[in-house]
Amino acid sequence: MDRKILLTEDEMPKRWYNIQADMPEPLDPMLHPETYKPTQLPPFLFSSELNRQEFSTDRWIDIPEEVLEIYRIWRPTPLYRATRLEAALKTPAKIYYKWEGVSPPGSHKPNTAIPQAYYNMKEGIERLTTETGAGQWGSSLAFATKLFDLECMIYMVRVSYEQKPYRKSLMHAWGAEVVPSPSNRTKTGQAFLEKDPDSPGSLGLAISEAVEDAAVNDNSHYTLGSVLNHVLLHQTITGLETKKQFEKIDAYPDAIYGCVGGGSNFSGAAFPFLGDKLKGDRKDLDVVSCEPAACPTLTKGLYEYDFGDVAGLAPIARMYTLGHDFIPPKIHAGGLRYHGDAPILSKLTHDGYMRAEAYHQTDVFDAVIRFAQTEGFILAPETAHAVKAVIDEALRCRETGEEKTLLFLNSGHGHFDLAAYDTYFEGKLVDYEYPTELVKRSLENLPKIK
Amino acid sequence: MDRKILLTEDEMPKRWYNIQADMPEPLDPMLHPETYKPTQLPPFLFSSELNRQEFSTDRWIDIPEEVLEIYRIWRPTPLYRATRLEAALKTPAKIYYKWEGVSPPGSHKPNTAIPQAYYNMKEGIERLTTETGAGQWGSSLAFATKLFDLECMIYMVRVSYEQKPYRKSLMHAWGAEVVPSPSNRTKTGQAFLEKDPDSPGSLGLAISEAVEDAAVNDNSHYTLGSVLNHVLLHQTITGLETKKQFEKIDAYPDAIYGCVGGGSNFSGAAFPFLGDKLKGDRKDLDVVSCEPAACPTLTKGLYEYDFGDVAGLAPIARMYTLGHDFIPPKIHAGGLRYHGDAPILSKLTHDGYMRAEAYHQTDVFDAVIRFAQTEGFILAPETAHAVKAVIDEALRCRETGEEKTLLFLNSGHGHFDLAAYDTYFEGKLVDYEYPTELVKRSLENLPKIK
Repeated sequence: MDRKILLTEDEMPKRWYNIQADMPEPLDPMLHPETYKPTQLPPFLFSSELNRQEFSTDRWIDIPEEVLEIYRIWRPTPLYRATRLEAALKTPAKIYYKWEGVSPPGSHKPNTAIPQAYYNMKEGIERLTTETGAGQWGSSLAFATKLFDLECMIYMVRVSYEQKPYRKSLMHAWGAEVVPSPSNRTKTGQAFLEKDPDSPGSLGLAISEAVEDAAVNDNSHYTLGSVLNHVLLHQTITGLETKKQFEKIDAYPDAIYGCVGGGSNFSGAAFPFLGDKLKGDRKDLDVVSCEPAACPTLTKGLYEYDFGDVAGLAPIARMYTLGHDFIPPKIHAGGLRYHGDAPILSKLTHDGYMRAEAYHQTDVFDAVIRFAQTEGFILAPETAHAVKAVIDEALRCRETGEEKTLLFLNSGHGHFDLAAYDTYFEGKLVDYEYPTELVKRSLENLPKIK
Repeated sequence: MDRKILLTEDEMPKRWYNIQADMPEPLDPMLHPETYKPTQLPPFLFSSELNRQEFSTDRWIDIPEEVLEIYRIWRPTPLYRATRLEAALKTPAKIYYKWEGVSPPGSHKPNTAIPQAYYNMKEGIERLTTETGAGQWGSSLAFATKLFDLECMIYMVRVSYEQKPYRKSLMHAWGAEVVPSPSNRTKTGQAFLEKDPDSPGSLGLAISEAVEDAAVNDNSHYTLGSVLNHVLLHQTITGLETKKQFEKIDAYPDAIYGCVGGGSNFSGAAFPFLGDKLKGDRKDLDVVSCEPAACPTLTKGLYEYDFGDVAGLAPIARMYTLGHDFIPPKIHAGGLRYHGDAPILSKLTHDGYMRAEAYHQTDVFDAVIRFAQTEGFILAPETAHAVKAVIDEALRCRETGEEKTLLFLNSGHGHFDLAAYDTYFEGKLVDYEYPTELVKRSLENLPKIK
């Protein structure tokens, strides 16, 4: 039996799947951050086609040929059967993973960076801005803008800029400009630097700088790497491929796992399957978001309207949130340190079609080392949360004898996260307690929608 | 047209190709380092099957099923058509590359690490030792030994141990023990540390420590990641796959390029094609070794008997050499800093079936940045030498209008080499002059074979 189920470039899906077409209830409207009236994404920040996709209820949206051409650099990606992990766990479960680490930036992020750069280019935009924390999103946007010959300006949270120099180098190699945030490039940044010249920065602050930059500069737009509906839409390329790959071996998963920060990688992998469940088929399909116990948005947050950014510039949406003031503990899975979650994923979780589990950092690293020593690949600390979940279920199957088919989205490699592995092997990895009091205070500051 | 030419796991070659079967003249014998009499590899250091392969003249050698099973983790690897690079160069040439960066350690090195670990395991060896410089080979052996449940002891050149901490972390993730060399674990290391406690180490010294360790410890063998005939043999999996891939599109290369340090990656890619030339077909096939101008073994060295290691413990072989005392300048392509070259590749070069070109560091980085910004992937500084050569030829074809088919082995990614990219972008990359006087002195110390 083959370890890898492959698709040819011809077999790559030509359309993204929009789950908004199949949701039993529509999403609550996006609201203006000041008037609290229903609104679109600000047109001076976002391309009109992305704005259209954000609110579309068409089931299928065509992928432009120019985007498909770039996807073919690394897509379709392989679906792996994790035979060596199964053997080590002595489980009757069948474990599959969709491997997104083969993209040039090393994760699923370019699946949306490419179309975002493309649509902006088509509409005459010459320059894109964004923020990045650990750098997965920033490096993917740098890659995408270079291929479409756009300028790229990245505000990187200062503490990451200093601690993760090589993700910054990656952005440079693809021609992007990267500055530590807070920077003196924006009024927001200048104000923060005046108060605290040594400010380590935060994702919320970097978002505000990138938004301000796009707002005041000509021919510039802002981009976001997760949370928004159009981002989840673009990520469905992974789930659509996986579904075709399962068809080739006449199989279908019983359970799907993925790590959740903003929610885009997991939504992309799961929605094409979850669509079947929403239509009444595959009622027993278990769809499990895997989040850090230190930032447990889905398992401990509220399902309420909240701001996505600290400055309150962006539209507000109803989602699971720990409060936009909440600054999560410094776990190594930097990509999962977000106070909210994608509105679509939040609603489907709230309405009972998906569920979530939270995991502690050392358990997650135990799992990903086990993966590295059997399957071979070194994964990102974010992805490790899904590995923990799937190993737990595989071990449960060993007890019950169930021959379940388990799938997880293997969202990226950990080549730029080896300092975290070192900390694990030195026995210095910290399991942060859930910050009950901090979240309680943060949740008091949700916007007061009547 | 597809960007990638893929093979199924079923189509993966089941045998390695041994070019010794087709060489017009046999290799000069390997000699004992003291008696200068013909000898084998020391049986207390090497598995008997690897020793058999070293001297075999059988054309095909079966790949064990257990090795194929592990190869399938990442093999067959894709053959890419570099359409975006071609367009940027406005060349009529067709550029193809075989992409080995998809392996878990990120290079071609596991192609031989896996069988070396396998044969030693089969013969009851429980522990393997080796040296590593930049860490590509060390991390590949760590990966291989973990999958066959062997212990692994790696002597890492101290300066690299300190400058490249994340390659060391990678070896730890796969369960290997790594010590900086010189170490106090061996008599050789102790002697060096007594003379100079701050010694930065060298590859030759690390080899001597790894050899001594294997010699004095029970159930231990030594392994080498390049140069030897059996290493080149295992690497032919890449060239054999590439040949099948070209057959699928009814094409054949006019020229093949690869970077050369010890010579194993390029030999593996080129020999299955070069075999045709040796048999009298494809007489015009151009086979080009790409080496650094700072360590120009093939273009400026002598074709003589020399030691492979500094201490003179290993058998001596006839090869192109700059002298075993020569310590090359600290170019970023650490994997190309070797004074000698594989005996088979050396003889085929000497006898006129292959040729070599040498390149300066900044030219090589110009080329690899151009590659990153068109094809997307970030490559190792070693691999960059082949990219430089292929771009030069493609630009020449633009002048002449020739629609040549060019192939290069894309031997690995540069995710652990981004400090070198930083140096390039800071304009601080140094082009070392060829150290004429140093080499002249070094060449005076070749062993005096009558």
